[in-house]
Amino acid sequence: MSDTPKTAIIGSGLIGCAWSVAFARGGCTVALYDQNTAAAAQAKDMLIQLASELEQADMLNGQKAADIVGRVSIADSLESALSGAVHVQENVPEKLDIKKQVFAQLDALAPRDAILASSTSALLPSAFTEHLEGRNRCLVAHPINPPSLIRAVEIVPAPWTDPEAVDRCATLMERIGQKPIRMTREIDGFIMNRLQGALLQEAFRLVADGIASPEDVDTGLRDGLAPRWALMGPFETIDLNAPAGVRDYVARYGGMYETIAAGQRETRDWTGDTLDQIDESCRARLPLDRIPQAQAERDSRLVNLMKHLQQHTPKT
Amino acid sequence: MSDTPKTAIIGSGLIGCAWSVAFARGGCTVALYDQNTAAAAQAKDMLIQLASELEQADMLNGQKAADIVGRVSIADSLESALSGAVHVQENVPEKLDIKKQVFAQLDALAPRDAILASSTSALLPSAFTEHLEGRNRCLVAHPINPPSLIRAVEIVPAPWTDPEAVDRCATLMERIGQKPIRMTREIDGFIMNRLQGALLQEAFRLVADGIASPEDVDTGLRDGLAPRWALMGPFETIDLNAPAGVRDYVARYGGMYETIAAGQRETRDWTGDTLDQIDESCRARLPLDRIPQAQAERDSRLVNLMKHLQQHTPKT
Repeated sequence: MSDTPKTAIIGSGLIGCAWSVAFARGGCTVALYDQNTAAAAQAKDMLIQLASELEQADMLNGQKAADIVGRVSIADSLESALSGAVHVQENVPEKLDIKKQVFAQLDALAPRDAILASSTSALLPSAFTEHLEGRNRCLVAHPINPPSLIRAVEIVPAPWTDPEAVDRCATLMERIGQKPIRMTREIDGFIMNRLQGALLQEAFRLVADGIASPEDVDTGLRDGLAPRWALMGPFETIDLNAPAGVRDYVARYGGMYETIAAGQRETRDWTGDTLDQIDESCRARLPLDRIPQAQAERDSRLVNLMKHLQQHTPKT
Repeated sequence: MSDTPKTAIIGSGLIGCAWSVAFARGGCTVALYDQNTAAAAQAKDMLIQLASELEQADMLNGQKAADIVGRVSIADSLESALSGAVHVQENVPEKLDIKKQVFAQLDALAPRDAILASSTSALLPSAFTEHLEGRNRCLVAHPINPPSLIRAVEIVPAPWTDPEAVDRCATLMERIGQKPIRMTREIDGFIMNRLQGALLQEAFRLVADGIASPEDVDTGLRDGLAPRWALMGPFETIDLNAPAGVRDYVARYGGMYETIAAGQRETRDWTGDTLDQIDESCRARLPLDRIPQAQAERDSRLVNLMKHLQQHTPKT
C-alpha cells in the first residue's frame, strides 16, 4: 500500500467529516464527496472545527489541524472521488434504497480492488450488496460517532464478503489508529449495539418493574460500572476480579449471574407508562430545548476524557 | 445529626478500610472494628495507603491523608465501636451464617436508632435480618469497590425495612459525597450486577456463537461504548442520541432493539469451550502470575480517571 493511501468518503455529514479527519490524521489522502453540493461546500468548516478540537486536545499525533484539513479535498464528482481510492467509506442516509443505489454506483466506479465500506449502524451488509458484481469486497465498517474521537470500528462481512477484504479493512483501520472489531458474520446490532441493547433492556426492566428510578439506574452505570469499563472490556474486567482470573471468576459468580439471567428473559414494553416515566425524568433533568447545548457539552467532555484515556493508556 | 456523626465499620479488609476513608473524608468520625485483632492492627497501614493515594490525586476535598486517618480509630471491642454510632457498615465475609451472626450482634449492641448496613454484593438483606428485633433498620448498602474511589452505592431494603431507614442511609451517603441508588425492594444482583450481568450474558453469547473474539468484544466496550457511559447513564445517553430526546430515540430505534432482544432470550453455557476460549484469550494477554500487578495498575489508572472525571463534571 502507498505511504499515503487514498480514501474516498461519500457523504459529508458529521460522520463523513469525522471519518475524513480520522483517515487524514492517519496519513491518508482523503477525497470527500457529497452529491448535495451545498453540503459539500460546508464540509470544510466542519473539518476545521473537528480537527481544531482534536489539536487542542493533543489528539492529532503532533500534527496541526491545518495539516489534517490540507489532506482532505472536496471532490466535485463521484468519479474523481473514487479515482485511485483503496478504501471507500460510505455515509449516506440510513435508507435501504439509498444504500443500494449508492453501492451500485460505488461498485461500478471504484477501482476493482478498493474496499467498499458502509458506516451503517442498522442495516446488514447483505441487505444492500447481494446483487453487485463486486459484492465480495463490500462490508460494513461501523464506527461509534465520531470516529475521529472514538476508536472502535465494527467490521461486518456479508455472507459473500471475502475474508481478505475484512483483513484489508482491519489493517487500514489499525494503521490509522482505529480499533477494528472483526466480526465473523453479520448479526443484527453488530457487537456494540447488542451489548448496549442487553444493558438497555435491563435498564428499562428495572424502571418498568419499579425497582429504581431512571436517575438511579443512570447513577449505577455512570458512577458505578462505567469508569472501570472505560479502562477495560467485560472479560478483562472480570479477569481481574477473582484471584485466579476469569476461570476463577466464573466458578465463584457464574451461579449468581445465572440467577439474575433467569429474571431477564422477558423484555418489557419500552413505551407507555415506562417511557412516560423515563421521559419525565430526562426532561426534569434537561429541558428539551437544551438538548443541543447538552450534546455540545457532552462532546466537549468526551474530547477531554479521550485525551485523558489516551495519555494514560499503558503502552503494551 | 451531629456535625461529625460517628460511624462504625465492622471488618477491616479492603472494603472496610475504603469505607472508613470514605466516611472520614465526608466528616464522620469512624470506629473500625475487626474481631481478628491481627487484621485490625494492620488496618492503619491500609488506611494510610488509601488516603495517601487519594491525597495525591486531589480527591480528599482539600484535606490531608493524615486528617482522614486521624478520624479513624481502631476499636478494641465491638461494644466500643458501636457506642454512639448513627450508622454501622458491615464488611465481614460473604457467608450467610457469618452475616446472620454478626447482624444479631449488631442489632443487640448498636444504639436503637443506628442504621445497620451490610456491604454484601450477593446476599439479599432479607436472608440475614428476618428474625432480628430491629430488622426494620437493617438494609444493604452495596458499594462498587473501593467506595473511597467509586461513588455509587446501592441501598437495598428488605421487605420489612422502614423506608425512613433507606432515607437516612441515603442522606448520610449524599452527605459524605457518595451517590446513593435507592432501590424500592430487594432483587438478585441489585441494580449494578443486573446491568453488568445483562451485558456479560451478551458478551459470552457473542463468543459462544463465534461472532467475535473475546479481545474484540472487550474492544467494543472499552474503546466504543464505555467512555460515553463514564459521563452519563443509559437513559441520559440515549436521551442525547435523538434530536427530540428519549421519546424520539425509542420511536426511532426501539424496533432495532426489539429485533436484537429476540436473539438474546437464551443464555449460553459460561463453561466448557466458551470459557476455554475466553480463558485462553485472557491468559495470552495477561499471564496468571501478573494478575496482582495488573490489579494494582488498574487501581492506579482508576484513581487517575476518577480524578479526571471529578475535575470535569459540570457543577449543576
